[in-house]
Amino acid sequence: MVDFTYHNPTKIEFGKDKENLIGTAIANDGITKVLLCYGSERIKSDGLYKKVTDSFSEKGIEWVELSGIVSNPVLSKVHEGIAIAKEEKVQAVLSIGGGSVLDSAKSIAAGALYHSDVWDFFIGKSVIEKALPVYAIMTLAATGSEMNGFAVVTNDTIQQKYNIASIHVYPRLSILNPKLTKSVPKNYLAYSAVDIIAHVIEGYLTASVQPHFQSRMVEGIIQTVMETTEILLQNPDDYNARAEFTWAATQALNGVTTAGTNPTLFPNHMIEHSLSALFNIAHGAGLAIVIPAWMTWFHTQNPAQFKRFAQKIFGENSAEEGIIALKSWFAKIGAPVSLKEAGISADAIPAIATNVFLAAQRQGASEVYTQEIIETILHNA
Amino acid sequence: MVDFTYHNPTKIEFGKDKENLIGTAIANDGITKVLLCYGSERIKSDGLYKKVTDSFSEKGIEWVELSGIVSNPVLSKVHEGIAIAKEEKVQAVLSIGGGSVLDSAKSIAAGALYHSDVWDFFIGKSVIEKALPVYAIMTLAATGSEMNGFAVVTNDTIQQKYNIASIHVYPRLSILNPKLTKSVPKNYLAYSAVDIIAHVIEGYLTASVQPHFQSRMVEGIIQTVMETTEILLQNPDDYNARAEFTWAATQALNGVTTAGTNPTLFPNHMIEHSLSALFNIAHGAGLAIVIPAWMTWFHTQNPAQFKRFAQKIFGENSAEEGIIALKSWFAKIGAPVSLKEAGISADAIPAIATNVFLAAQRQGASEVYTQEIIETILHNA
Repeated sequence: MVDFTYHNPTKIEFGKDKENLIGTAIANDGITKVLLCYGSERIKSDGLYKKVTDSFSEKGIEWVELSGIVSNPVLSKVHEGIAIAKEEKVQAVLSIGGGSVLDSAKSIAAGALYHSDVWDFFIGKSVIEKALPVYAIMTLAATGSEMNGFAVVTNDTIQQKYNIASIHVYPRLSILNPKLTKSVPKNYLAYSAVDIIAHVIEGYLTASVQPHFQSRMVEGIIQTVMETTEILLQNPDDYNARAEFTWAATQALNGVTTAGTNPTLFPNHMIEHSLSALFNIAHGAGLAIVIPAWMTWFHTQNPAQFKRFAQKIFGENSAEEGIIALKSWFAKIGAPVSLKEAGISADAIPAIATNVFLAAQRQGASEVYTQEIIETILHNA
Repeated sequence: MVDFTYHNPTKIEFGKDKENLIGTAIANDGITKVLLCYGSERIKSDGLYKKVTDSFSEKGIEWVELSGIVSNPVLSKVHEGIAIAKEEKVQAVLSIGGGSVLDSAKSIAAGALYHSDVWDFFIGKSVIEKALPVYAIMTLAATGSEMNGFAVVTNDTIQQKYNIASIHVYPRLSILNPKLTKSVPKNYLAYSAVDIIAHVIEGYLTASVQPHFQSRMVEGIIQTVMETTEILLQNPDDYNARAEFTWAATQALNGVTTAGTNPTLFPNHMIEHSLSALFNIAHGAGLAIVIPAWMTWFHTQNPAQFKRFAQKIFGENSAEEGIIALKSWFAKIGAPVSLKEAGISADAIPAIATNVFLAAQRQGASEVYTQEIIETILHNA
C-alpha cells in the first residue's frame, strides 16, 4: 500500500424527508444568508423548493438565488454566482440538484472569497485557501460530488473542462434522500450507473499499487450498481434499490476506494471531458462510449487486474471477454457505446484528440496520451 | 435501507514515518500543552516516545504524561488522567498505543471538560457536550477506535465494562503507521483479527435490514483480514499485508459497514465484555470463545444471512458448516475457542451470565438475552 492522507469531513443525512432538516442545520451553524443554486424550475413544481424555502423562513434565514445551472456546468454561470455571492454578502452556498449544480456551488464558494478569477484554481495558477461553507440537497445519484472536494466546470470561452480539488469545498452537509432522485429519466439513470462504475474502475484498472482490500471495495460497488440499475429500470419505485444505488454512488468517489492505491490519472474522464465539452453530451453517455474503447487499448498493460475484473464482475475468464461483457451491459441499460450512436462522426476524431491532448499536457500525461494514442482509442469507439 | 446520519471527521495519516508529523499537526491546531497517554514503557525503548517528544519540543509544545494504561482499561486510571488534565490545564490529549490507551484518552478528553464524574456518560446519566481534541498514534490495529467516537472502559469498582459514543471524541487526527504494529505478538495479532471480524459480523448477522452493498463491504473486510492474518503469522515483516490489515481494522468500525443497516445490539461484545471484566482475558480471545457459541445459538433466527456468510467466506453450503469453519479458523490462528482453553470453568457460567444480564438490561436487551439464554450460549462455549 502507498502512504496516504484521508480526511472526509462531510456530514451525510441519508433517508426519507431529510431535506426538511436543511433550515435547522444551516441555522445551527450560525448562518443567516445563503446563495441557493439550482438548475431547472422543476424543483418549484415538485415541491422541493417550497420545502427548503419554508425551512429557511422558519429559521429566519435569508436567501438569494442562482438558477438555470446546466449539465456540464459552465464558468460564465459560476462567475455570475460569485458576483451575486459577493454583492449580497452571503455566508454559505446551498446546492439543490445533481453534480453540475453542486460543482458550480463549490466553485462559487471558493471564488466568493478570492480576489481574482476563480478559473485560476482550475488551471493551477492559485490554490484554494478558503471557501464559503457548502451545503447540498442531491436530486441525482451519480457524481459523488456530495462527499468530496472535487468540482468540474467547463470554461465556455475556451471549451476546456477542468477540475478543482480542495478540502475547503467538501460539503459541510449533504442531504441524500433517495426519493428525490426518482424523477431522473431512465436514460440518465443508465448514464449515472456508467459514471459511478467509471469512478471506481479508473483507479482499479490503472493503479500500479492496488491492494486486494481496495479491489474488493470496488467490486462491491460495481456489483451493487449493476444489480440496482437493473432493478430500477424495471421498477423505479423500488426504494431499497434506489437507496443502495445512491449510497454506492457516494462511496465510489469519496476517497475510500483509492486510499492506499496510486492511480495517477483518470484517463476515461480525461477523454470524456472533451466529448462533453465539445458536443455537450451527457457525461455518463460519453463515458459509456470511451470506457470500452480505452479498455481495449489499455488492457495488455495490466493483464492480471483486467482478468480479475472479468472474473469477479462477469464470471468471464479473459480480459477481452470482460470488456465485451461490460460494453454489452452498457448497451443493455441503454447507454451509447460508440461515437456514431452519439451522432459524432469519425471525421471529428482529430479535433477531439487535440482537445484531449491539451488536458493530457496539463495533467502531465501527454507522454503516454499522445495525439496518436488518443486517436487510436477514439477509433476504437 | 434505513435512514442514517454519517459523519466521520477524523483525519487519517497512514503510512511510514507518519508519526513524525504529530508535533506539526498539533501546533497547527494552535495547541501548546498536551496530556500524553500511553501504556507500557516499551515506547521509550523502541524510540517512538523520543520521536514524539522531539517533535513536541521542536514546535514548543509542552506535555504532561499518564502512563501505565492497561488492556481492558479501567475507570480509576481515567479518573487519574482527568485530574492531571484539569490540574495542568492541557488543551488536548494524545494517545500512543492501541485501543485501550485511546479509549482512555477519549474518556479523559470528555471528562476533563465535565463538572462531575465521567462515569455519568457511560451509564447514560449525562450526555457528552464537549471534549478536548483527541490525537492518536496507533501501535495496534484492532479496535477501530482510531476513526470512531466510541470508548470502552471497565469500572474497576463494580466490574462493569461499558462504553460511550459521541461525535466529540472522534480523534481529530489518527496516525496509522503499520510498521508501529510490528511488535504485537502473534497471539495478539490473532486476537486482533478476531476483534475486527467481530466488529463487522455483529451487524452483518443480526440486522433485520442488511442491504447487499453493506454485506459486500463486510465480506471484503473479513476476506482481507483472514488473508493478511495468515500472511503475517508466517511473515511479520510483510508490510503490504500489515498495511491492508491495519486499514481493514479501521474500516471495520468507522460507521461505513453499518450505515443504512439496523443492528440494535452487539451481542458478542456484550457477552465478551463480561468475560474480560471478570477474568481480564484479552478482548479478542474472549470474542473467539463467544462468537461460535453465540452463532450456534442464534443462526436459526437469520438463516439466509448465515448461509450467505458460509458461502461467501468459506465456500460452505450451510450455516452450520460456516460456523464450524470460522471456529476452526480461529483455532488455526491460535485463538482460544472454548471457556476451558481460557482457564474458565463451567462453574463460573452463572456468575458470568449474571454480569452479562446486567449489561443486557442496561442496553434494553434483557427480554431476548435472559439469564437462561446467556447461560445456554456460554454452555455452547
